[in-house]
Amino acid sequence: MAFLERIEKLIKERKSYLCVGLDPDLDKFPSLIPKTIDGVYRFLAEIIEATADIAVVYKPNLAFFGSLGLGGLTILGKVIQLAGQETPVILDGKFGDIGNTARKYATMAFDTFGAEAVTLNPYLGSDSILPFLEHKDTYSFILGITSNPGSAEVQQRELAGGGLLYEHLAMDFEKRFPQLNWGWVAGATQPSALSKIRSISPSRFLLIPGIGAQGGELGQVMERSKSPDGIPMALINASRSILYASNTSNFKEAARDAALELVGEMHTHLRPVS
Amino acid sequence: MAFLERIEKLIKERKSYLCVGLDPDLDKFPSLIPKTIDGVYRFLAEIIEATADIAVVYKPNLAFFGSLGLGGLTILGKVIQLAGQETPVILDGKFGDIGNTARKYATMAFDTFGAEAVTLNPYLGSDSILPFLEHKDTYSFILGITSNPGSAEVQQRELAGGGLLYEHLAMDFEKRFPQLNWGWVAGATQPSALSKIRSISPSRFLLIPGIGAQGGELGQVMERSKSPDGIPMALINASRSILYASNTSNFKEAARDAALELVGEMHTHLRPVS
Repeated sequence: MAFLERIEKLIKERKSYLCVGLDPDLDKFPSLIPKTIDGVYRFLAEIIEATADIAVVYKPNLAFFGSLGLGGLTILGKVIQLAGQETPVILDGKFGDIGNTARKYATMAFDTFGAEAVTLNPYLGSDSILPFLEHKDTYSFILGITSNPGSAEVQQRELAGGGLLYEHLAMDFEKRFPQLNWGWVAGATQPSALSKIRSISPSRFLLIPGIGAQGGELGQVMERSKSPDGIPMALINASRSILYASNTSNFKEAARDAALELVGEMHTHLRPVS
Repeated sequence: MAFLERIEKLIKERKSYLCVGLDPDLDKFPSLIPKTIDGVYRFLAEIIEATADIAVVYKPNLAFFGSLGLGGLTILGKVIQLAGQETPVILDGKFGDIGNTARKYATMAFDTFGAEAVTLNPYLGSDSILPFLEHKDTYSFILGITSNPGSAEVQQRELAGGGLLYEHLAMDFEKRFPQLNWGWVAGATQPSALSKIRSISPSRFLLIPGIGAQGGELGQVMERSKSPDGIPMALINASRSILYASNTSNFKEAARDAALELVGEMHTHLRPVS
């Protein structure tokens, strides 16, 4: 089943929009977990087990695994395989390269690591995006507006003739790529930009980082990410607040509780998902 | 010795501005090379040996190694180690992520893989760049203007008040980052943009892809990349034209000849480097 169908099905089944970001950071690890590659794998396996019926997608970030050495990249594939049994996985690599090379990144993400979706950086234009969209069962989240302070420096520049860069980019890609297998990354810290992207792409999924630690407000994000039929088409990411909910021996229960609490909060902002 | 000093020394010693792009593509491999991970390593080791006294820098692209499976990522580190004995190495990953994650990418590039320089994507703004610059002995090439057709779609948008996006980005980063350990990627296919970037950053190194296969013209690029004292501060990349100069048993000699020919052509466009 393609990523898009799996996600739509899981959102209904699990009544959740939760994306769990798998960003292993040894400095934040529970103290009883050995700071080894095996320790990282075991920790993430526990987190996946604790959230398996709550998350609708997992999102490991390439950098966090790559910073652990080659062993980190080896377990990235294993983590994706483990998480992917029940739940689709987005490899967060923010890939962006010329066409020929983009094809190789698609192979890396979908074949080497076995992800079903990726994040992409649009700075090189549409020929850096198309090779990913050609993998029809996968899904690509293109960076529209990111959650960090520097997002204004490029993405929110005003263009000649009016409108901001990310708005024009969204309109251009919406015209250029009628394919259904892509959506946008839209940071929770930029609510008005999130609304704007939703208005340009009414029915594409939004991958939304920046809730919690980065300051984004959940209710607002849920409301603004609704598609025309009133249902949010959003995958709302939480990483640190779940993975590192506790650094003691109860980290697994704490992670589950944090995930349940966040999904509970999603429900308060919604009529129940039918 | 820091990347910048090594490069400046090697340009004088080897009288060359050649960057050899190490992009292993099995479809283009000489027919006698086994299409295995060992075969890829042996092929690249031969290419490095054939060009060791001609290239001043090597540039493996993460995507090409990652597309070969985990084994490909394992030999990426070995290739960087081998090439790096005599010549510095740029890991072409076009990394771009929020500050916390950018730090992890820096660890991946400089520690896991042992590169001395990287390429960076500026779409997320200055907080995605700074963590790399803090590694003082390394060097970062920030994508200014790329060599592909899609480069116009984002990078060359005209901004309100005049000027193109990449020009404003270059001016902003020039002000914001007085550090010496970074320069620009500027595609050979965009000569007027290359001149513009040179005028904004008169004395930073330019990493220039797009000569040859992509259609950039060498003499023009050499001239336009000169610093105020009349010396090009450029690293001119060639990948396919060297690696796949022949697909028969003489591929190694053919690679050397192609590299020598390109460097010879550089000399015709210059007064000799003193």
